Amino acid sequence: MPGSTQEVATLVKTCAAMHVAIVPQGGNTGLTGGAVASGDRPAVLLNLSRMNRIREIDAANNSLTAEAGCILANVREAADAQERQFPLLLGSVGSCEIGGLVSTNAGGTGVLRYGSMRELVLGVEAVLPDGSVWDGLRALRKDNAGYDLKQLFIGAEGTLGVVTAAVLKLFPRLSVCATAMMALSGVQQAVDLLRFMQGQVGNRIEAFEILSHRQIEIVLEHGHGLQSPMALEAPFYVLMELADSSPQWDAGAELERKLEAALERGLVLDAVVASDGAKADRIWALRHNISESNKRAGFTVSNDTSVPISRLAQFIPLVTGRIEQQVEGASVCHAGHIGDGNIHVIAVLSRALYTTPEQCEAAAARVNLIVHEASVELDGSISAEHGIGRMHVERLERFKAPIELQMMRAVKAAFDPQGLMNPGKILRAG
Amino acid sequence: MPGSTQEVATLVKTCAAMHVAIVPQGGNTGLTGGAVASGDRPAVLLNLSRMNRIREIDAANNSLTAEAGCILANVREAADAQERQFPLLLGSVGSCEIGGLVSTNAGGTGVLRYGSMRELVLGVEAVLPDGSVWDGLRALRKDNAGYDLKQLFIGAEGTLGVVTAAVLKLFPRLSVCATAMMALSGVQQAVDLLRFMQGQVGNRIEAFEILSHRQIEIVLEHGHGLQSPMALEAPFYVLMELADSSPQWDAGAELERKLEAALERGLVLDAVVASDGAKADRIWALRHNISESNKRAGFTVSNDTSVPISRLAQFIPLVTGRIEQQVEGASVCHAGHIGDGNIHVIAVLSRALYTTPEQCEAAAARVNLIVHEASVELDGSISAEHGIGRMHVERLERFKAPIELQMMRAVKAAFDPQGLMNPGKILRAG
Ligand SMILES: Cc1cc2nc3c(=O)[nH]c(=O)nc-3n(C[C@H](O)[C@H](O)[C@H](O)COP(=O)(O)OP(=O)(O)OC[C@H]3O[C@@H](n4cnc5c(N)ncnc54)[C@H](O)[C@@H]3O)c2cc1C
Ligand SMILES: Cc1cc2nc3c(=O)[nH]c(=O)nc-3n(C[C@H](O)[C@H](O)[C@H](O)COP(=O)(O)OP(=O)(O)OC[C@H]3O[C@@H](n4cnc5c(N)ncnc54)[C@H](O)[C@@H]3O)c2cc1C
Repeated sequence: MPGSTQEVATLVKTCAAMHVAIVPQGGNTGLTGGAVASGDRPAVLLNLSRMNRIREIDAANNSLTAEAGCILANVREAADAQERQFPLLLGSVGSCEIGGLVSTNAGGTGVLRYGSMRELVLGVEAVLPDGSVWDGLRALRKDNAGYDLKQLFIGAEGTLGVVTAAVLKLFPRLSVCATAMMALSGVQQAVDLLRFMQGQVGNRIEAFEILSHRQIEIVLEHGHGLQSPMALEAPFYVLMELADSSPQWDAGAELERKLEAALERGLVLDAVVASDGAKADRIWALRHNISESNKRAGFTVSNDTSVPISRLAQFIPLVTGRIEQQVEGASVCHAGHIGDGNIHVIAVLSRALYTTPEQCEAAAARVNLIVHEASVELDGSISAEHGIGRMHVERLERFKAPIELQMMRAVKAAFDPQGLMNPGKILRAG
Repeated sequence: MPGSTQEVATLVKTCAAMHVAIVPQGGNTGLTGGAVASGDRPAVLLNLSRMNRIREIDAANNSLTAEAGCILANVREAADAQERQFPLLLGSVGSCEIGGLVSTNAGGTGVLRYGSMRELVLGVEAVLPDGSVWDGLRALRKDNAGYDLKQLFIGAEGTLGVVTAAVLKLFPRLSVCATAMMALSGVQQAVDLLRFMQGQVGNRIEAFEILSHRQIEIVLEHGHGLQSPMALEAPFYVLMELADSSPQWDAGAELERKLEAALERGLVLDAVVASDGAKADRIWALRHNISESNKRAGFTVSNDTSVPISRLAQFIPLVTGRIEQQVEGASVCHAGHIGDGNIHVIAVLSRALYTTPEQCEAAAARVNLIVHEASVELDGSISAEHGIGRMHVERLERFKAPIELQMMRAVKAAFDPQGLMNPGKILRAG
């Protein structure tokens, strides 16, 4: 647990000299086992949490420099105190850290409007696998002086070096917002609704999340007294938030007006607008209780694939049908970031049928393979936002073109010829 | 002039076998000599202009797949025909090509709202230096399955491989816009005005360009009968366009209202709103005639540096004072993308004083060094959008940290160990 960039450098140098592997770790909230030592060789777990200083906020430049160990919630608060917004938002906001977010190119609910972490990082400071320090903490909006090296560290999951700090983009603070829940006849309608709304309100769509009927049912059953603000008669529901930095924009009135137009066009079957913050929170509680509720409902196998948005309406029934046919007792629900083509396909398996760890593992493997195969068939990705980590290394090898694996290995070898940095993550070790 | 990806691959393979260098070329509009064979060794000039097919438009996915030789104007038109917008816009729109735009990570006037080319590319197809073809033409909004290899080719200026096609992001087509010209007391006021406007209208600012008093004078003097819509009594002027995809947004009324508020707050000295498209065109003509007019005004030395936006108000007087003190007969004017921290510092040297090519070259070298030094002093970049090419190779070596040059060389060696791809560009050959 080093406390400074210099200490990280000393540690890495020592490990390099002794040929000891290094596993960088932030908040340890990653979902693919990337921050866990893999056990096949001795490794130092290098946790960045002590490096939790916000080094600088330059409000006039809309930028903030944070050390790797800063927790996302604290960065968001620091921005807010300067009347700015750092828009990245995900369920692990209270424990995930900047270094981990950079290293996984994290997404979340704000990607539609603001982009993933890659779009939110202006500069990176990193300790390279030989222990040397690269100060790439530039706070520029435009810089074409040579290769954009920070891109290599964003999403590298700790395999190319240790991120010790980053310069983040800030945005004007939002001052108005309005939330609605809408009933839809299918996935295609959700995509059409999104395009319609984008034409109407541009990028003022702060969030646009889909939940299937079955998913909401599970949340209502297992979510400790949550209620749905509308009758559940449609196959899909969208939660939408409009927001703007201008206090003059009447978000509520705009939302009602646009929803009326959407109803008239048949894009929406029914809609409820939250008339105050408490009602909006109750709508969002449906979304935020998915993981917890699903766990209580059974043995859950979640997936994080993406396809082109134009293929979502094909992907969802395809994959759902295959799982239901091929995996006994599986009930499939869906939730996710539909505006990014990134819907989590979640199979909930009855604990009555799947009792031993071996049975669960075998079923999970079957579900994952079905989902991965379908997404690749439709030109999608087997990992939209959670990365490869340790969990999907073999899967990546199976589905990536050999030339792409070769290019990835070339990058890895150029920066980490000894293979010390997080071995066995993303790529097989050695 | 190959006509297909396969022909590019064959060509590159042949060159690799014969150890002949390759210089990729698109529209040849680049401003740093990157597409020019450097002459110190035999090279094949590989021009992509025949590969000019738009392979696919997926309107529902808001994406378009274009071959490297597609001219930007044609791509914009093709998007428009599908009621979409491809927002990249620069002076060379009628001749620059997608491969060149990708390879220079081009910017232009749309960066403030839409980002540079890096933010607009979803996928890349490239021929690697050994002649193998990498099909990275994914059309996904999110993909964290391994390293994001396309980032390597964006901004690489042809030194890592030949880009043969790219998947581009599309946006909803704009349906309303309004233009204003504003007089300001200084650079800091322009930054404050931008932040105020962003708070008021979010990302509906389509363009926000600054011109100094002297720059407008030169355009009026040499720009073939152009007129200023307002008296020239302030040191700086901003041209601003608000635009939205929603036809219900009254851009003109919004602009007037926000400008009144800005006048009340003392952010603006005076303002003129274009009441129709023809008047807006006349305002924008001032901006678009800068290069031509400056050339007629004297021997022009233009620069393309950036600094953090918070330091612009320090950078501009600093660099202007140094040039005026140290370069005889230099008159300095300013124009550019102030919202990106990217102002072109332009020295116009009287042709009466600078008559021989040697005198001109020496003066240009002096101006450039002053501007580069000042931008690096203030944590800026010596090349915000035009790249390094052949022109700034020595300068990059002088100002980049050795570790960063080393990392760049490691990337180059990993992909192009023979040094065949565009040798002597970005990095010194060998
Ligand atoms: C409830 C919940 C909801 C989530 N929702 C989302 C979501 O919506 N979208 C999304 O994208 N993800 C989501 N995630 C997963 C997401 O990956 C993590 O929350 C976050 O990005 C990881 O941050 P961390 O600090 O916990 O990193 P860790 O888990 O500690 O590490 C993640 C990876 O990064 C590497 N790493 C960590 N720190 C560094 C460093 N300083 N330098 C180099 N490498 C480093 C590790 O080696 C590992 O490979 C969610 C997770 C949870 C638990
Ligand atoms: C009037 C004018 C205004 C301009 N305004 C701007 C501006 O506002 N913002 C801005 O960013 N730029 C601007 N530029 C410069 C800008 O770099 C180019 O317009 C454009 O990006 C280059 O495209 P091109 O097809 O002409 O590339 P070229 O000039 O042919 O090549 C540029 C570089 O890319 C490489 N390259 C070209 N094609 C490929 C390929 N297929 N694969 C690999 N490498 C390739 C070349 O080797 C070279 O290094 C302007 C230029 C002009 C003339």
